Amino acid sequence: MPAPITPSYLLDAWVTPTDPSHTTEVTDPATGEIIARSSTEGLDVAAAVDYARRRGQEELARLSFHDRALIIKKLALYLQEHKGPLYEASACTGATAADHLIDVDGGIGTLFTMSSKARREMPNATVLIDGATERLSRDGSFLGEHIYTSLPGVAVQINAFNFPVWGFLEKFAPAFIAGVPSIVKPATPTGFVTARCVELMVDSGLLPPGALQLLSGSAGELLSCLDYRDHVAFTGSARTAELLRGSVAPGVRFSAEADSLNAALLGEGIGPGEPEFDAYIRALATEMRAKAGQKCTAIRRAIVPEAVIDDVVSALAERLAGSIQLGDPRDPDTTMGPLVSAAQAADVRAAITQLVDAGGRVELGGAEAGKELGEAYVAPTILSFRGEAREAAAVHEVEAFGPVVSVLGYRERAEAIALAARGGGSLVATLCSHDLEEVREVATGIAAHHGRLHLLDRDDARSSTGHGSPLPHLIHGGPGRAGGGEELGGVRGILHYMQRTAIQGSPDHLTALTGQWHRGAAVRRVTRADVDSGAGVHPFRRSLAELRIGDQFASELRTVRLEDIEHFAESTGDTFYAHTNEEAAQANPFFPRRVAHGYLLVSWAAGLFVDPEPGPVLANYGLDNLRFLTPVTYDDAIRVELTAKRITPRVTEDYGEVAWDTVLYNQRDEVVAEYDVLTLVAKEGGEAPRGA
Amino acid sequence: MPAPITPSYLLDAWVTPTDPSHTTEVTDPATGEIIARSSTEGLDVAAAVDYARRRGQEELARLSFHDRALIIKKLALYLQEHKGPLYEASACTGATAADHLIDVDGGIGTLFTMSSKARREMPNATVLIDGATERLSRDGSFLGEHIYTSLPGVAVQINAFNFPVWGFLEKFAPAFIAGVPSIVKPATPTGFVTARCVELMVDSGLLPPGALQLLSGSAGELLSCLDYRDHVAFTGSARTAELLRGSVAPGVRFSAEADSLNAALLGEGIGPGEPEFDAYIRALATEMRAKAGQKCTAIRRAIVPEAVIDDVVSALAERLAGSIQLGDPRDPDTTMGPLVSAAQAADVRAAITQLVDAGGRVELGGAEAGKELGEAYVAPTILSFRGEAREAAAVHEVEAFGPVVSVLGYRERAEAIALAARGGGSLVATLCSHDLEEVREVATGIAAHHGRLHLLDRDDARSSTGHGSPLPHLIHGGPGRAGGGEELGGVRGILHYMQRTAIQGSPDHLTALTGQWHRGAAVRRVTRADVDSGAGVHPFRRSLAELRIGDQFASELRTVRLEDIEHFAESTGDTFYAHTNEEAAQANPFFPRRVAHGYLLVSWAAGLFVDPEPGPVLANYGLDNLRFLTPVTYDDAIRVELTAKRITPRVTEDYGEVAWDTVLYNQRDEVVAEYDVLTLVAKEGGEAPRGA
Repeated sequence: MPAPITPSYLLDAWVTPTDPSHTTEVTDPATGEIIARSSTEGLDVAAAVDYARRRGQEELARLSFHDRALIIKKLALYLQEHKGPLYEASACTGATAADHLIDVDGGIGTLFTMSSKARREMPNATVLIDGATERLSRDGSFLGEHIYTSLPGVAVQINAFNFPVWGFLEKFAPAFIAGVPSIVKPATPTGFVTARCVELMVDSGLLPPGALQLLSGSAGELLSCLDYRDHVAFTGSARTAELLRGSVAPGVRFSAEADSLNAALLGEGIGPGEPEFDAYIRALATEMRAKAGQKCTAIRRAIVPEAVIDDVVSALAERLAGSIQLGDPRDPDTTMGPLVSAAQAADVRAAITQLVDAGGRVELGGAEAGKELGEAYVAPTILSFRGEAREAAAVHEVEAFGPVVSVLGYRERAEAIALAARGGGSLVATLCSHDLEEVREVATGIAAHHGRLHLLDRDDARSSTGHGSPLPHLIHGGPGRAGGGEELGGVRGILHYMQRTAIQGSPDHLTALTGQWHRGAAVRRVTRADVDSGAGVHPFRRSLAELRIGDQFASELRTVRLEDIEHFAESTGDTFYAHTNEEAAQANPFFPRRVAHGYLLVSWAAGLFVDPEPGPVLANYGLDNLRFLTPVTYDDAIRVELTAKRITPRVTEDYGEVAWDTVLYNQRDEVVAEYDVLTLVAKEGGEAPRGA
Repeated sequence: MPAPITPSYLLDAWVTPTDPSHTTEVTDPATGEIIARSSTEGLDVAAAVDYARRRGQEELARLSFHDRALIIKKLALYLQEHKGPLYEASACTGATAADHLIDVDGGIGTLFTMSSKARREMPNATVLIDGATERLSRDGSFLGEHIYTSLPGVAVQINAFNFPVWGFLEKFAPAFIAGVPSIVKPATPTGFVTARCVELMVDSGLLPPGALQLLSGSAGELLSCLDYRDHVAFTGSARTAELLRGSVAPGVRFSAEADSLNAALLGEGIGPGEPEFDAYIRALATEMRAKAGQKCTAIRRAIVPEAVIDDVVSALAERLAGSIQLGDPRDPDTTMGPLVSAAQAADVRAAITQLVDAGGRVELGGAEAGKELGEAYVAPTILSFRGEAREAAAVHEVEAFGPVVSVLGYRERAEAIALAARGGGSLVATLCSHDLEEVREVATGIAAHHGRLHLLDRDDARSSTGHGSPLPHLIHGGPGRAGGGEELGGVRGILHYMQRTAIQGSPDHLTALTGQWHRGAAVRRVTRADVDSGAGVHPFRRSLAELRIGDQFASELRTVRLEDIEHFAESTGDTFYAHTNEEAAQANPFFPRRVAHGYLLVSWAAGLFVDPEPGPVLANYGLDNLRFLTPVTYDDAIRVELTAKRITPRVTEDYGEVAWDTVLYNQRDEVVAEYDVLTLVAKEGGEAPRGA
């Protein structure tokens, strides 16, 4: 009986081509057994694109960023509980137990981090404001701002074979939180692992209809169905990236992450015995062993001072000998498995041969090493490029996508920088140095050629997450050869699936569109007198259920006397001359004479706006963007206007955050200070608003 | 004698092909006179690219963002004083006096705004930090962050004919401030105006060598010289954009801004007599008249409620009759000039014919109207598309790049949204409505299809800068048909010429690379005891000449007593229950019992860190990112550590900004609060550091 065809998941149903004319066979590289077949023959990808654009968009649009992020967290918890099947499937791809941690646990961890960052750093809304409001007219009646809204199409994700779980989830999560439905097309050799993961996610019952579809096999006509509303994220070889980029219609957003000739630089004057030397060798060995070097981010070029090239080669060879046991990944002693397939191994052998032909000396391993275990096995291979060989084009261009590293010598700092840049744009470089001036010069020199720089020395060697590990917090991608794309980076990764739009309009327009109050927009105002007389409810007495943006409290004026300033100076200890020395204050370019402390003003402002009795406002947890704009001297008076600006109910708590736009005015209505007061407010338990 | 060949400016010298085999003639469209010729035959563009990458990069790298921005301001002042020749040249392109204001003065204004935003919003440095620091290890020894550094190549700018000054300067300024040298290739019909502008800028003596080169004519091999280090910004037709995008090497950054079928929507229920109706008609008329409709942002589609289509057509025709006088732009009575050339006019006539063939009814003007004045003249033309004609592909796809508008009727809100999106991605849309719920729904529905939304009603009609005017503060560009690019947007526009890179390392690494102090990095610490004993200098006594990032002051502990809290409540009026009511405070989920006011803590912190005597610290002008992390109850004690984090000398003042990382700890060394204190510090006049 032939191996099963890996099913696709389209229009919220599992589908498998019936009796396809051709299927691609997938082999376990350790055993040679055929374990799956793939085909998408006859599947209607145009219908899938249409379903995503209509149903998926509609379902996701009902949810806020926080709602979607919470689903991502629940999916992570579900996968966490059910990851056994993923480990089992993963082992059939040549991956070891340590590799599962990178792929499966790394993928789940990415879901947790993206979820938590989205809920912490984004509003609980569907529109995100980018940056500050621009006042475009003197009278404040015409404002400008930038917003992000969900792309109106589908996110097509074409993944590489090396990380069937992580590679899928790190693209899916940001698109989902952005509100864009995904169609995932994994690479055929490991697509059955992705399918297993999708199956678990579907079984969880957490996915809204249309939010996720899976195409297990050839993409067929998928890319030709796309237009400017859609997004393609590709991970794979640089060559395929360019092929696909050229095949999509104008206007389709296309982001590529391609493997690159990543470098690790060892600083000048570092030799055996130094803590940086050891950290560097460990980093090289780790990147060769993990996934048998089948990582886009693995170190391909070790760029070291010429004087220590032999030391590096021998220390690395020794470390590899002590740490690498090549074999079947299901064998508990195995620390490095075969490559994903015999075909991949043949590619790597061909690349090694090219590198040797370009002047590389085989220091360990070689094109044929490892083959004795099976066609898919490649042994750790160290090549050295001495003298002018370091300039050979092949060493900077030919990638052996396996456990292979080229060691190059450099003579001076400028040459190290130039050699790193010879990669033509890379995902990541490590610079191992404890010399901060060297770090500044080299890192500045190579930054623009890289998507990520990993700085390593004795201080962070133990805590570093490593050269080869993209983190959900930081962008992943790189210029040039690395594909020119960008993924992850916390909220940045979500914004890749959103359109930035400038908006111009009145304060009321911008308030209506963004859901955040803008100064000048309509308010529901109560004064202290209203509160005292019972004619109005203080906004601090409104729970999230009752509070609306634009709810405003306006205080009376309070006059600042010289003795208030003196008293504040004395009680706080803040006896800065501008508050205590009339002559010195007058000599200061910014002050007319002695002035009130900024901290006195904000403290008094709190006294002016506060509602003292217990109520739904639970705490003032901070303050943002405080600026003192007009000095307040004695016998001036201040008043405060406090307006509910941004309301962020937390999806997992019985309270939320409220940011209050706060403006202090003096007796001439000049703005004295402005800031946002940040409070936690209960969802229930306020007084129902009465009138106002 | 033939007209002169417009010179190019390459390798910091003016060059003109000698005796070229072919030149392109440029004609004054109003007079038919041949006024210039263009050719780049034999010019060495590869040498120009190399010169920019080497010399231009090197010269710009010596300057900080603020240095470069100040040069941009000086260039703006210089052009402001010398704009007469630009007006004269511009008049030879068909542009009226009002058009000069958009192109010449608009270009100069863009320089002023970009300069001022760069100096206000960017550090005085060459590396820009993007976003917050990520703590990647529990012990804080491994951090992550994002930085922007200058692209290491050249910015090639290929401009459209319609704005030879603004189009050039709006691309040049951001690239220059980013530290990237430019090669500018204007469109041939108006390139002589750009050349005149470059000549003035060269004459000013303000440009660093290699920072600006000009190619007056065909781009030749220019694009094929570029690689992943370089950037191409194109403005022009969608078709040319795709052609050029396909012709650059993989990895070259390519940004396009193409003309699009911009819509202006009139809200439901708005008819003659309403202020929104008048504002809408004015907007339509303005966009037809300005530059004779030759603006990428002009309104091509007026989408109005079906019931008022006749009212819109007749009001617009009336307004145009009263405000448009077609003629030679040098005639003072002229309010609209000819198109840039007879060829452009022929294209517009052909487009009008296509639109008529697709069902457009000519309400005013028409394909042949205006021709009586000369081949380059096109009269204002209104077409209406009634009933099903609104669905015709041509009305949403065929652009008449002249004073032509199509008026379409819609029946319901959802249809208006769908019709706007039919443009397939546009630079800008106007929505004219005073109904905030309509604004929210329609604007949210169309935002992702647009680069900019202009919201118009009675409140901002007078202050609005208009549908068609890109502002330097806001992004310009749009998805799909509009080219998929993005320009301007203040600092966002500068970042397009920089590479974002994730950096990971120890606090010392990140400090060395960014020039900003990171918590955990090395400090130069003095305590209150050191200051009192004379063993150390308080950092507040150091001017910018002496102060270094990492300079730190550490206070003694000060105990908070219940009477301090009570006293603070009384003197400020902040009698919130958490400070005054033991029982209620205990019932609050965040507090153990009565706690000190947050404002008491920051006030006391100032008292603990302040150095009272007059010195180089001139003022505390604000505070950022204050967060209260651990409540402080009575009998707890607090201390403060204040560390110079970011130093920003102002290039035009004798002081600068210093941001101080401020951390309050309690007696158990838990972080109580953290924030940045913002001060103004004099460049000179501190005490020389002694020891410490």
